Amino acid sequence: MSSPAASARLVEYDQAPEEVRAVFDDIKRTRNVPEVNNFRKALARHPDTLRRTWSTLKEVMAPGAIDARRKEMLSLAVSLANGCASCVASHERAARKEGMTEAMDAELLAIVAQACETNVLAEAYPVPLDG
Amino acid sequence: MSSPAASARLVEYDQAPEEVRAVFDDIKRTRNVPEVNNFRKALARHPDTLRRTWSTLKEVMAPGAIDARRKEMLSLAVSLANGCASCVASHERAARKEGMTEAMDAELLAIVAQACETNVLAEAYPVPLDG
Amino acid sequence: MSSPAASARLVEYDQAPEEVRAVFDDIKRTRNVPEVNNFRKALARHPDTLRRTWSTLKEVMAPGAIDARRKEMLSLAVSLANGCASCVASHERAARKEGMTEAMDAELLAIVAQACETNVLAEAYPVPLDG
Amino acid sequence: MSSPAASARLVEYDQAPEEVRAVFDDIKRTRNVPEVNNFRKALARHPDTLRRTWSTLKEVMAPGAIDARRKEMLSLAVSLANGCASCVASHERAARKEGMTEAMDAELLAIVAQACETNVLAEAYPVPLDG
Amino acid sequence: MSSPAASARLVEYDQAPEEVRAVFDDIKRTRNVPEVNNFRKALARHPDTLRRTWSTLKEVMAPGAIDARRKEMLSLAVSLANGCASCVASHERAARKEGMTEAMDAELLAIVAQACETNVLAEAYPVPLDG
Amino acid sequence: MSSPAASARLVEYDQAPEEVRAVFDDIKRTRNVPEVNNFRKALARHPDTLRRTWSTLKEVMAPGAIDARRKEMLSLAVSLANGCASCVASHERAARKEGMTEAMDAELLAIVAQACETNVLAEAYPVPLDG
Repeated sequence: MSSPAASARLVEYDQAPEEVRAVFDDIKRTRNVPEVNNFRKALARHPDTLRRTWSTLKEVMAPGAIDARRKEMLSLAVSLANGCASCVASHERAARKEGMTEAMDAELLAIVAQACETNVLAEAYPVPLDG
Repeated sequence: MSSPAASARLVEYDQAPEEVRAVFDDIKRTRNVPEVNNFRKALARHPDTLRRTWSTLKEVMAPGAIDARRKEMLSLAVSLANGCASCVASHERAARKEGMTEAMDAELLAIVAQACETNVLAEAYPVPLDG
Repeated sequence: MSSPAASARLVEYDQAPEEVRAVFDDIKRTRNVPEVNNFRKALARHPDTLRRTWSTLKEVMAPGAIDARRKEMLSLAVSLANGCASCVASHERAARKEGMTEAMDAELLAIVAQACETNVLAEAYPVPLDG
Repeated sequence: MSSPAASARLVEYDQAPEEVRAVFDDIKRTRNVPEVNNFRKALARHPDTLRRTWSTLKEVMAPGAIDARRKEMLSLAVSLANGCASCVASHERAARKEGMTEAMDAELLAIVAQACETNVLAEAYPVPLDG
Repeated sequence: MSSPAASARLVEYDQAPEEVRAVFDDIKRTRNVPEVNNFRKALARHPDTLRRTWSTLKEVMAPGAIDARRKEMLSLAVSLANGCASCVASHERAARKEGMTEAMDAELLAIVAQACETNVLAEAYPVPLDG
Repeated sequence: MSSPAASARLVEYDQAPEEVRAVFDDIKRTRNVPEVNNFRKALARHPDTLRRTWSTLKEVMAPGAIDARRKEMLSLAVSLANGCASCVASHERAARKEGMTEAMDAELLAIVAQACETNVLAEAYPVPLDG
């Protein structure tokens, strides 16, 4: 996109209602950061959406069968496929913090680009699934 | 999609021109399979595209800074985001063969769905990038 | 898409673990239906994803500032834009049950198609936002 | 997108050919505004496209079985799903003018994000349609 | 997509209202075919949408600065990028009738796949536009 | 997209490793330009991806059954459908250099917009393929 809308209004901690502060506090504690990022401050205009998406994110991104680094790398890959530049920037930073090297980043990008190309070809060539 | 086109014509090894056979042989050797899959047989109608895409795939998917299992999982995540059901089926099978467990598969899917939701919200809320 | 993957495995109530049954029961109660649909039975392979997506859906689709019919119509519009045919079929049925008439359905479809056309043109023609 | 192309050239009323002026006049009359927006001025480089898209828009967005507010809200939902930020900004403003409240806006956004997540999951889990 | 909705209801000429018959007659005359295709019969449930989309299609696809063959090939390329398999099948047939050869078809497909890959990389690497 | 990531780091010829210089030299020779564009300089951070994508581009875009102008126009159409503004700007410039007139550009845009609208309608109305 090229004509960005005026920036969304950000809700700062000081003016935030109680329920928003509770989520902000949980984000800061969980991520061990001094401040929530601007995207969460924008979501805070809609406290229910802020709470729900943070709760999902926290649960989905917690290390489990897949570790934190690979979870960030999967999120990065999806954000690249979806063309969300701010998401790409954010997940790239997070993945780097979790140990993704420059070489891994390069290979990830090559895989995403290759998959996008192949997805188009596969849609174009409907074939019976292999047995 | 709902009204699938008639299936693409498949090029079988026996009727394939020399250059297609060379790619088919390389695929079978590299993947250690007795037969190439239907998608490659369909691409074989266009020998240049078959050769080029196989060459890229072989290079991109070879284990490097990222191992084979994680490369398949990244391809699976992108195919899910792109909504390519045949690609999903194919990469899911390959990732399983490389050791992706049912639990990893479940977590991967949750991450993809979560990222797609967040990508939309991030596009909707343009904010200044965090410093 | 044209080469549908083999159908996902469905989890029936009788074989479902306790946590899945609890969600199935809540779905049936909330929607007043005798049986959950196949999509939820497929999600049930991943109990956490089933629980989380149902909880989000229940909260998001509950009548609020927007009534149930308009919420279904918005979901239908998005599913159309995303090209998800099974989602379209499901939301169309739900919107009809909530009172969407054939005429509304026709107007909705015309709006979605028109918006998709305009979105492409707007991306192609970057202009300064109007004051 | 992140490297916006140079802005499209805008056609101002004074320099516009007769057929473009006729469309501009109709837009101003229909919407009761003193000036057409920049997007229409950019489309005016291609008078046929300007005329055709305006004619479609005028017909599709006229209140019918669905009222003006809900039509703008549907356009907003589709623009969000398509990630067109300038379209989002424009339809959000229009929907507000037609009476969409902050609370409705928040619920609409939550529905769009939720639908995008579910669409991906539904594509990933092909199931037989429910009877 | 993998769980196709039940087929849309088709409106046959004999049961069609007057305004639909007029469009059907114009399609048959313009394309010199004995019968409209199923897609138009489905659109006919919404006579206004049928009329409007046919009118746009007729105007947009008429040979002008770009000839009929290249117009069909452009439509085919877009349908491939959008992953609409029934559209691909339909435009491929039309482009063939207008003289697109097997070799052109192969090159077109390679360009679409290559562009989809590059589009993703370009979104990932925001750079200042070249002077 | 609206919050562009900080610009990608560009690799200039003077600091580039041998393998990158070789590709840069080939690009300059093939396109007869004094300097590679910023996108290639950004890709150069990942020399393998630079080499592979340039090699594919060079092969795919070489005049064959389709001439250079029509190849650029197809790439432009796909970039429009994918909403990649920097790709649109770049392919539009290239297509103009190959002889695409203002009138052709206008018709191309109208076709892309029309196809995107029809693709959505076709996904919404699954019909049996015509015989």
